[in-house]
Amino acid sequence: MNQDVVDATSSGVCQTLAALASGNIGPVDVAEACLQRAHRLNPRLGAFVDLRQALVREQAQASAHRRREHILGRLDGIPIAIKDCFDIAGWPTRVGLPRAAVEMATHDAAAVTRLRAAGAVLMGKTALDEGQLGAHGQSPHYPPVRHPLRPTHTPGGSSSGAAVAVASGMALAALGADGLGSVRIPASYCGLVALKPTHGEISCVGMTPGARRLDCVGILAREVRDAVVMLQVLAGYDAEDAFSRKRRVAFALPDLEPGRLRVGLLPDLAALGVDDAMQQVFARALDTLGDLLGRCHRVDCADWDFARARRAGLLLLEAEMLHTFAADLLDVAHPVSPRFRHMLDYARGKSAADYVAADRMLDAARLKARRLFAQVDVLITPTTPSGAYPLQQAEPANAADLTSFASLSGCPAVSIPMGMLPDGLPAGLQIVGPPGSDLRLLELAEVFAAALDTTPVFPMGNDS
Amino acid sequence: MNQDVVDATSSGVCQTLAALASGNIGPVDVAEACLQRAHRLNPRLGAFVDLRQALVREQAQASAHRRREHILGRLDGIPIAIKDCFDIAGWPTRVGLPRAAVEMATHDAAAVTRLRAAGAVLMGKTALDEGQLGAHGQSPHYPPVRHPLRPTHTPGGSSSGAAVAVASGMALAALGADGLGSVRIPASYCGLVALKPTHGEISCVGMTPGARRLDCVGILAREVRDAVVMLQVLAGYDAEDAFSRKRRVAFALPDLEPGRLRVGLLPDLAALGVDDAMQQVFARALDTLGDLLGRCHRVDCADWDFARARRAGLLLLEAEMLHTFAADLLDVAHPVSPRFRHMLDYARGKSAADYVAADRMLDAARLKARRLFAQVDVLITPTTPSGAYPLQQAEPANAADLTSFASLSGCPAVSIPMGMLPDGLPAGLQIVGPPGSDLRLLELAEVFAAALDTTPVFPMGNDS
Repeated sequence: MNQDVVDATSSGVCQTLAALASGNIGPVDVAEACLQRAHRLNPRLGAFVDLRQALVREQAQASAHRRREHILGRLDGIPIAIKDCFDIAGWPTRVGLPRAAVEMATHDAAAVTRLRAAGAVLMGKTALDEGQLGAHGQSPHYPPVRHPLRPTHTPGGSSSGAAVAVASGMALAALGADGLGSVRIPASYCGLVALKPTHGEISCVGMTPGARRLDCVGILAREVRDAVVMLQVLAGYDAEDAFSRKRRVAFALPDLEPGRLRVGLLPDLAALGVDDAMQQVFARALDTLGDLLGRCHRVDCADWDFARARRAGLLLLEAEMLHTFAADLLDVAHPVSPRFRHMLDYARGKSAADYVAADRMLDAARLKARRLFAQVDVLITPTTPSGAYPLQQAEPANAADLTSFASLSGCPAVSIPMGMLPDGLPAGLQIVGPPGSDLRLLELAEVFAAALDTTPVFPMGNDS
Repeated sequence: MNQDVVDATSSGVCQTLAALASGNIGPVDVAEACLQRAHRLNPRLGAFVDLRQALVREQAQASAHRRREHILGRLDGIPIAIKDCFDIAGWPTRVGLPRAAVEMATHDAAAVTRLRAAGAVLMGKTALDEGQLGAHGQSPHYPPVRHPLRPTHTPGGSSSGAAVAVASGMALAALGADGLGSVRIPASYCGLVALKPTHGEISCVGMTPGARRLDCVGILAREVRDAVVMLQVLAGYDAEDAFSRKRRVAFALPDLEPGRLRVGLLPDLAALGVDDAMQQVFARALDTLGDLLGRCHRVDCADWDFARARRAGLLLLEAEMLHTFAADLLDVAHPVSPRFRHMLDYARGKSAADYVAADRMLDAARLKARRLFAQVDVLITPTTPSGAYPLQQAEPANAADLTSFASLSGCPAVSIPMGMLPDGLPAGLQIVGPPGSDLRLLELAEVFAAALDTTPVFPMGNDS
């Protein structure tokens, strides 16, 4: 393979856009590089559940044709992976469910429409947890999804396939979904960048609903600046999304100046179940960031129970999934797994008043976030309490405890790689800010990522 | 009584403010006039459940004292009635419940704080339905609340006492609450002006929660301009209210120009259960408004089931009430009425997924409203399908069918008197607009009200 192509597509969206602009490579080269990696790696890693080579080539050729005249948009010719909870017209939307329950989509999801309008090449649909409920990243109805750096381990979920596709160079960025941490958790495990935007910032129309007060379209990328381009393409008001925000993210200069930041830190990570290895990597990262962090405060979280909040969020997800899939999964006897059925049955045993109690936890989270972000500019935590773990191991109950606060409160959150755990696998740093601060968080993340310089080297499968 | 005082306080907030400014009367005169009417009328009409004469006089004297130096705010010296679901520090908040379940408030509700800061004289707490669930306006634990024009009839609810207090001159305006129509329904029955603002426009902190996605502080007044002053005092962001909007109502010039309006009308009022008498009054009102209405469109409502939407809203209210009062009403055997217990038991029989299904009706209402208000500037309907009815008659199931759409969609709605039904009782015209159009709706309502000129003459009890 042309070394220019390998270099470009091993990095990310922005570097590839520069290479495309230079004319050294074309969209077809980029797409072929991704397809070749997918051909070599996907049978082993299980990232894509639906990859249509002919369609990829067709899109890439159309892009190449277009680019001779004019560039359609900011992603013209860039291969993007799509989590299999987004509708693509004419494709089934599997959501990790058994094939019998799968429906054919008639329209593109709003986020997919925006990607197409920006010229992106849709690579295919990526794997996720069964019914998108979980952080393990696996569905019993599809092949296992394996960690790109250690195939015995899970990449985390629920946007597992999307993360693996991006980490292993089968796509340059991915459209994920994040209800309690579903892009940030695999980003942390795999050493990627993830953005869960402000609730309502990106339209969720055409995305299988999880819990609507939590649902966000999420972004997975290899570099922070790639996530910025994705956000700029995806963000915007949609009258068809009941939770869409009219005020969009201000694409302005950052007003979070590193060194003058007020940074909030959690008072006791051990009490939140963060393991020793993760605590050490986090401490080292804070040390490396040093003066960039400005004044650090231990924030008061005595009034916030992270585990209880995560369980409340999970109940909303389970109850809404029960509503969404009731007809498909329960009235008809489709062979969903016992684990998934158990989760829905759990929700089925819950009353309307139980739902209200859980829903009020979201109100409480919003108020907690308002008080918090009156005192500090950003909250910085490890993204996950621990790193990636073997596939056969059960999902840690607290996997989403640190990510769910931003979900419940509707706040944006970014995860960037912060270093390697003793087992050689990556760990993520999470930056949370008040609603609407998405771009400022990314700009801060860019500065932090440069200082940390800990992005893992991914095996791109092109060395064989 | 001084004729100036009678004239001023028979009219409303703005006229009384003018009289106070002229110096012909003082806040003590105004308060005494209201107290005298309450003394004469309240034992018969049951508007107030808690009226503290000494405290009213104290506030009025403080206002009189202040006004010699400077005026505290836009309501300095104006007696306002408070629906008994708002906290006043040191007073019990009854919410129509049996006394055993009542708690003493430790803080003023946010809306009460704003009224106090504007110099209002808090008259007392007004009657409402048991647990604020209903449109009948009655609680079995308190005296009946009677229609000021026909004491055999209900004034409607749930803000029954607030409406009666304003209609009968025991207060000049009132703080109500509106979850599905609770200020608009009694305004329609009693010939008053009501505003249910955009959801999140007025802080609900310290108001007993109904359903938080529906809950609005509502305003009851005798004249449209009085409701404008109340809105200006009450509207604003509150960081302690999870649903508070940061964009407040623009207090700018109206951009809804009568005569150039695009008015939406419902295609078939009879199919919605609007009775013949109400249809005729409505048709006459539209006829009188004539050119002021601009272009009228029959809007497409084939995709909107008003009764089903109202039932969905009611389930949210019941389920949230169950959550709010579970400890007080159900674990301990307080003697709530069989009707109220039945409503909570109904909610208790509903699952989390049932709640989700009802909650999604609110999302659907938001989308329906966005589509509707892309086609028309305002939607105009009768406020209620029928007028006030005898106390012993059961509440019509469809009483809130026409008001609940604005509640579910989060839109502002104004009710103004539009004429008299054949039985001599008033009927209300409802104007609904898109979120944030509160003040524009009121400005339009002022023009319409002047053209209709149908405000009933209330018996003020000062002729004896």
